[in-house]
This record gives sequence, structure tokens and C-alpha cells, in this order.
Amino acid sequence: MRVTFRKMFKNVCTFLSCISSGKSGALTLKKCLHSKPNFTKNNYNIIRGNYSHVEEEHLYYFRKLLGETRIVTDLSDLEKYNVDWHKSLRGGSTIVLKPKTTEEVSKILSFCNSNRLAVCPQGGHTGVVGGGTPVFDEVVISTELMNEIISLDEKSGVLTCQAGCILQNVDEYLAEKNLVFPLDLGAKGSCHIGGNVSTNAGGLRVLKYGNLHGNVLGLEVVQANGVILDLLSTLKKDNTGYHLKNLFIGAEGTLGVLTKVAVQCRQRPKSVHVAFLGLQNFHQVLKTFYKCKQDMDEILTAFEVIDTPTMTLVNEKLGMQSPIGDYPFYVLIETSGSNEEHDQEKLDAFLKSCLLKNFILNGTVTGEVGKLKAIWALREKIPQGFAKDGYVFMYDMSLPLHNYYKLVDDMREHMGKLSHRVFGFGHLGDGNLHLNISVQKYTPEIAKHIEPFIFERTVHYKGSVSAEHGMGFLKSKYLGLMKSQESINVMRNIKKMMDPNGILNPYKTLG
Amino acid sequence: MRVTFRKMFKNVCTFLSCISSGKSGALTLKKCLHSKPNFTKNNYNIIRGNYSHVEEEHLYYFRKLLGETRIVTDLSDLEKYNVDWHKSLRGGSTIVLKPKTTEEVSKILSFCNSNRLAVCPQGGHTGVVGGGTPVFDEVVISTELMNEIISLDEKSGVLTCQAGCILQNVDEYLAEKNLVFPLDLGAKGSCHIGGNVSTNAGGLRVLKYGNLHGNVLGLEVVQANGVILDLLSTLKKDNTGYHLKNLFIGAEGTLGVLTKVAVQCRQRPKSVHVAFLGLQNFHQVLKTFYKCKQDMDEILTAFEVIDTPTMTLVNEKLGMQSPIGDYPFYVLIETSGSNEEHDQEKLDAFLKSCLLKNFILNGTVTGEVGKLKAIWALREKIPQGFAKDGYVFMYDMSLPLHNYYKLVDDMREHMGKLSHRVFGFGHLGDGNLHLNISVQKYTPEIAKHIEPFIFERTVHYKGSVSAEHGMGFLKSKYLGLMKSQESINVMRNIKKMMDPNGILNPYKTLG
Repeated sequence: MRVTFRKMFKNVCTFLSCISSGKSGALTLKKCLHSKPNFTKNNYNIIRGNYSHVEEEHLYYFRKLLGETRIVTDLSDLEKYNVDWHKSLRGGSTIVLKPKTTEEVSKILSFCNSNRLAVCPQGGHTGVVGGGTPVFDEVVISTELMNEIISLDEKSGVLTCQAGCILQNVDEYLAEKNLVFPLDLGAKGSCHIGGNVSTNAGGLRVLKYGNLHGNVLGLEVVQANGVILDLLSTLKKDNTGYHLKNLFIGAEGTLGVLTKVAVQCRQRPKSVHVAFLGLQNFHQVLKTFYKCKQDMDEILTAFEVIDTPTMTLVNEKLGMQSPIGDYPFYVLIETSGSNEEHDQEKLDAFLKSCLLKNFILNGTVTGEVGKLKAIWALREKIPQGFAKDGYVFMYDMSLPLHNYYKLVDDMREHMGKLSHRVFGFGHLGDGNLHLNISVQKYTPEIAKHIEPFIFERTVHYKGSVSAEHGMGFLKSKYLGLMKSQESINVMRNIKKMMDPNGILNPYKTLG
Repeated sequence: MRVTFRKMFKNVCTFLSCISSGKSGALTLKKCLHSKPNFTKNNYNIIRGNYSHVEEEHLYYFRKLLGETRIVTDLSDLEKYNVDWHKSLRGGSTIVLKPKTTEEVSKILSFCNSNRLAVCPQGGHTGVVGGGTPVFDEVVISTELMNEIISLDEKSGVLTCQAGCILQNVDEYLAEKNLVFPLDLGAKGSCHIGGNVSTNAGGLRVLKYGNLHGNVLGLEVVQANGVILDLLSTLKKDNTGYHLKNLFIGAEGTLGVLTKVAVQCRQRPKSVHVAFLGLQNFHQVLKTFYKCKQDMDEILTAFEVIDTPTMTLVNEKLGMQSPIGDYPFYVLIETSGSNEEHDQEKLDAFLKSCLLKNFILNGTVTGEVGKLKAIWALREKIPQGFAKDGYVFMYDMSLPLHNYYKLVDDMREHMGKLSHRVFGFGHLGDGNLHLNISVQKYTPEIAKHIEPFIFERTVHYKGSVSAEHGMGFLKSKYLGLMKSQESINVMRNIKKMMDPNGILNPYKTLG
């Protein structure tokens, strides 16, 4: 069914009233944490490294350094640092340290290194592969009190901040100066900039602004032995010696602890539009994407895809529904630019052409802030729906576009009646697929049926087993699927060089 | 003087006829090489590392591997590999090897490593800091025969090619597919992609597409011991283990020899415009830049500045002149987008507003390909002018914008009558200044008067002594000005780990 854009717009209003009526059943993080998973060390049969245990003498040092208020040792207070946000992992840390300054981090690491105490650096603890969750009794170094914005050059857009700044807070601060952070993701209300950089987080703006390797200008990092590395360049071009900062981007805290970050922020767009489209099949999704790049590349900010099972989940579990009726596939396109009228014209012409060519079946478009947010909520709240659909195996793949949805089809066939549903959605514009599988209840048999098949299939399709979430704890054992032995050897040599005692985030990344 | 855009356009035509009349005195690379500089080892008093010399037994191996035709040993043929393009450096290599495949590079390095023969990887040999020029008798490994495009995914824009592909050839190949390489620079007709990546080359498109750390998706690298590292991911998002490829971007061939590169190319813009403006002072240049970002950020591709001495040089030495008359400062703005009409409207509105606010005094704008090229030639041919202005000390700085031109003023004052002229021009949009100083004749006294003063002043202004050209041979001794001892220690440890015998491009980067 084709509708005019005016007609489409009415649909958005219906949709909005549905959201505001409170049908949405958003699940808070707190709720998740009320039930406790088993200890990771038992679930995964991990052998503890040869590290010291935290003793009274260590506690004495930490208390002297940070005072009582910046140390957590109470068992119930420790839970939120020990359990990951979707309750699949549980560490046994007995102490969380909350430094405020780089010097404190330096002293902590120097002490831990000398005393062979393993540490687990932790940001907003929003990761989904357990990179920031302790496995045994690692000393958790939380960056939550390292949340100061150090400087902003409004003209050049260069922001320098401490690693514990929350992404959303930073972006709101930047909004006041007509700037935008070059990264946006669902967990923005909790995740820390340092964690984002440590995991080379991707998210929603990669299509427009590129990845963090291109956007991070400088870092301050504390090495395992406590030595502070000042790599805090604030220049867009700086070709002096090896680009050490890039070594820490995506190293998941296994090579050093990030304390400060300098980022190239961008001009905040004056005009933002969102289109929400219904499509017949995945082939048309690809055609629409290619046409979108041809027709309006410079204003394209996001190109997201959602399949029917995912939309059904959002509808059933969160009470939200598609504003344009039911279609096999949905696409969310965001544009941003400097001229409202130009952007609207481009988007309108593109959509009309897509309708004419039968690439899309229906669609709605808006430039109003409230309505934009409501459409984005459909995409961003998807993870909250999973928390209500039994046990969900969550994956984050990267695939060549022609293979993107093949993996979802394959997994649906492979799972048969074993799964409740197989979901495919994600940042199609970057080739990034989130493939989730819900089952009635977790069993080791189902887990074995899924893994390593799903990763092997991904590699078969020339994809990556981790697009934007990193290897963390959960995926580290599959590193060999992605990297050659020669590459892994170099990684291990770097790790050994940077952290000879192996105290930094053990059991992660390289396993 | 304010002129209407129609009037401005006439100016461009006059300017074009001037260029096509042959007044331009382009200096070819060949011409430069007719005179020979002194040997670098003598000029700079360098001590040769403890490497073997190339003997008959080594020649025998290389001949067997590559055949006679892919080895250069003739003294006169060796010159172009031994002398850098602006004739300030001269190595004494006795052999140049021209492998075609990764496996050949692997065998060469394995052999050189076992025999303790130092090597100098060389691309198009267009660098200006001597990164690709041998210092003593290093074995030159030229990538000039490694020039195959391996694959192009036209839909995703991912190109994979051998390291020796010439930038311009690749960009022309991409143009046929409506794609564009995310890098452009003056030496594009000669420089190799591998050299670009090894030096983290910047150039003209960084403002729009970001740097190579963001755009290179994957690399194939041969390590010092001949082991091939397959880091050739072609995915936009791939977070599996340490991002090793970034370690080689900008490492100037001191950590490994690049053999293949995968790059994220972009949609070729349908509409390109260039504006050439005259301004009263540098303060107005900055105001114009900030307004430009506000008014048309998404279509801004380049923002270049040229000062009066530089324009005078271009006029005097190359017979080219400003199409808008004489002004203290000139700005070249390039926009690119998907809609001709929209881009024109944005640019017109921006220029009108700048005229009204007195940010700019005059200007000309064009969207015609021939005229675009003619205006760009004014900027791109500047380096050719220097070759005719006595001896020229050439620098490539990065500075916070508020300090950008202070360094030029300082150097003018510092040089007094010692210099003929001090020139300031560059990629202002990235904070990248090319500061050149011409003198009647090179003397060690003048060199000492300039250096290290110019670098210390740059650091005083929170800048970088190398924005886009790297450290190479010439700047390596100033690494300590830019990096902390802790950072240099880490760099040295990485070098030692990756190249224990130090055979890869000695005397470069880390000195």
C-alpha cells in the first residue's frame, strides 16, 4: 500500500499516542540485577591465574589512598560491579576502587602490579561480552568518579574529558555549544567514554562520522606498572612517531587503563529527519540502501534495519508498534544537515523514487524532535524487549552486505524448534548485524547447538564475530576463528611487553 | 571591492587563459634530480648501524629470486632511488629490489633478516622528510611493481589493492565506479598507496573523510623476519582483538613492509564547487572558516589558506595569478555533495553573508570541471614554485587554529634579513600549516638559526612538528620535543619486539 507523505504523517501521530499512553514496558537495569546468575568461573570452568588475593594489608593501602568512601567492600553493594547487565556473568570481586585522578589510578596499578593483584577496569558496565565484568576476585577499578570535562575548544570541536564521563552527559554538554559527539549508542545514559574507547564502540553514528580510531585524537593511559602515558594530543593531524593511542582503542583495558580522552567532535546538525519504511524483502532493503547512498550520501547519518520477528517482539513485550503497519522488513533512515529545506527535498525525492521503483512499500517521515525520538525508540528499545522473551543469546556480527541476512536465515533453519525466535536487526549501513536467538530456557545443549556454529558460519560468510562489542570474556575463545596464528602471536607479544605480570583484565580479549 | 558572482566568474576565465597560455613553469621531478646533493651520511654525520654489506652471495640470492630485470644495480639507475625529490638527501644504496608479490617480499625480508642486511622500503619516493630514502647502503625494496587492484566491492565501496598502486590511478579507477578514494594530495600522480598508509598521509580530503586510521579497513604486512601478517579485514566494523593494523599506519616502514591495503572508499560526489576568496587578515580567515562549518558542514571538503608571499611566489615563478586580484590572504573552499542546486544555494548564501559581514573582500566561485582544476592548480602547484626560489626549508606543522598564523609571523621576525621569504599556506581546515622559508643559499648557520627554534616554537604553541609528513629521517631527532620519554620507551620496545635486528628502515622515525 502506498500512501502520501501527508498520510504517513498521521500514522506517526497514532504511533506517538501509543507510546505516550504508557504501553511501553521499559525494563530498568535495576530490575535485571535482582536475580543472580551463577559464578562465571563455575559456568565456564575457568582456572584462576596465579595472582594474589586481596588481604588486609592491601585494603589498608587502598583505604589510605582513597579513604573509606571511595572503596566498596560490602557484599550487596559489590553486586552491580560483579554482575553484567544481562545477568549472564558473575564475578567474585571483593573490592571496588573509585579513583578520581590519574595519579590515583597510577598508584593503584603500581601497587597492584608489585603485589600481583589482578585488576578489572570498569566503566559504565554496559558491555555485553563481559569485558568489564570481573571473572574471579580481580580488584575492580571503576571510573565512575572520573567524570570531569577538562576542556572544550568550541571552535575546533576538540573535547578533552576524564574517562568516566557518561556519553549522554557529554553529548548534552556539547549540544549547548552546537556540537555533537561522534558516537551514539543505546547505552548512552550509562556507558563511559573510557569504556567506549576501550571497546572501540560503534553504535549509531559510524556511518556518518566513522569509527573511534578516526575520531579519538589523544588518550592518557596508565600502564600496568603505574607509569602514565601522555598521548593526549588534541590535534587533528599529528604524525610524530608510532600512533600508540590506537593500540589502546579496542584493547578492552588489557594493555592499560584509560584516564583521559580527547575527541574530535562535530558541528551539531541544524536539521535532522527520520524516515521509517516498510519493505517486502531483504533484497529491497539493500536496493534502498544503495540508492540512499547515491541520492543523499552527505546527509545520511543512520541506516538501520529491523526484521519482522524483532518488530513483533517490540510490539508484544514493550507495547510499541510500527507506525506504518506490518511489513516483512523495516528500515529507519536518519539524515542530518545544515539546511532543513534541502534535506527535506532530498529525502522526499529519494522516498518518492523508492516508492516508484517498488523498493519500499510504505513509509513515514518526520523532522519534529518528539516524533524523531519516538521512532528512534522503536529501534533503541529493542534490547529491552529481549529481557522479556525467555533466555536470549545475543550476537553482534559484521558481514559483507550481500551476506548480511543469509546468516539470520541460516540460524533460523539451524535452530528449528529449539529456539523461540531468531531476530535480525542492526546498523545495516555499517554491515553490522545484531542476531539474537530467544529460547524457553538456557541449556548447555542449546548453547552448544548455537556455538561455535554461528561463528563458523559468520567466518564462512567473510564476516566478523564481533562488529562493535569486542571480544571481552565471552568471545575471547573464538579469536582463533578471526585471526591468524601469526597475528595472535603479535598480540600476545604486545600484551607481554605492556603487562608482563598479566594483571590487566585477565581472561579477556586474548583469553 | 565587492563583485557579484557573475562578475567574479569572468575573473576565473581570464585566469584560465593565463594558465593555458603556458606561462606556468611546472618543474618535473626528473629535472630536480639532475643535480646531486651530498651524501646524507656526511651532511648529517650519521654512524652506520652494525649491518652487513651487500656481497656477491646476496646478489646471487636476489637474482635467483627476482631475475635480472627486477633488480637495479646500475649506478645511474640507482640515483632516483637514492636521492629524495627535493634533492636534500642522498643515500648510497647499491641495490634496488622490485618484488611483485607478498611472497617475494617475505623471502627478501627473511633473507635480509638472517643476513643482517638493512632494508629501506620505498613507495613513490615523494615524501619530504626522507622516510623512503636510504641513508647508507640499505637494500631498497621498491613497491613499484606491486600495483594490482585486487578487488572492489562497488556496493560497499571497499577497495583492496597492492601497496604499490599509484594514488591517482586508483582514484581514476574508482571514478569509473562513482567512488572516490578518501585521500588526495599533490603527489597523487606518483605516490603509492602503501607509502600513503605507512606515513599516515593527510592531504586534501581529511576535513571531509577523516584520516587513514579511520579509513583503512585492513592491511597485509610482512614482518622483519619474513612472516606475513594477514590483517586484511574488509569490514567497516571489526572488533576482534588488538587493532594491529593501526600500529603500521604511520610507522614509516620501521615495523613491517606493507604489501596490501583495504580501504573504505566513498560515494563520488555528483556536485563539486570551488570558491576562491580574498581576505584582509588572518582573523577574517578564521571567522570565515567557523562560519563555513556552521553553514555547510556536510558539504565542506577542503578549506585551504594561502598567504601573500606564497601567492607572489606562484605568480613570479610559475606565471600563475590570483583570479581575483591581490589580497593579504586567500582561501580556497571546496564543497561536494549529491545535489548541484542545493550545494550552489548553500555556497552562494554563505559567500553573500561573508561579504556582508566583511569577512571576505572578494571571491570567485565555479562548478565547472576545467575551472575547478585551474583554481586547484594554484594551490597544488605551490611546491613547484619553491624549487625555483633558491634553497627552501620546508615544514609541515599542525597547530591549534588560534595559533596557526602566529608561527609564520614569529618566523618572519626571527629570520629577518636571513631569509628571502617566509611562506604560510596549508590545510587550515585541519589545522595543518605548511611553513616554508626560502634563502639565497643553504648554509649550516641558517639551518641552525631555524632549527630547533621553529620546532620549539611549534611546541610552545601546542602544535605538532609533523602534521602529515611523518618523522622520516629529517625530523626523527625532534621526537623528544613531541613525545614524553615514557611514550618513546614504549615505541622503542615495540620496535625491538617487531624488528629485533633493527633491519627495517634504520635511522628513521625513532632515529
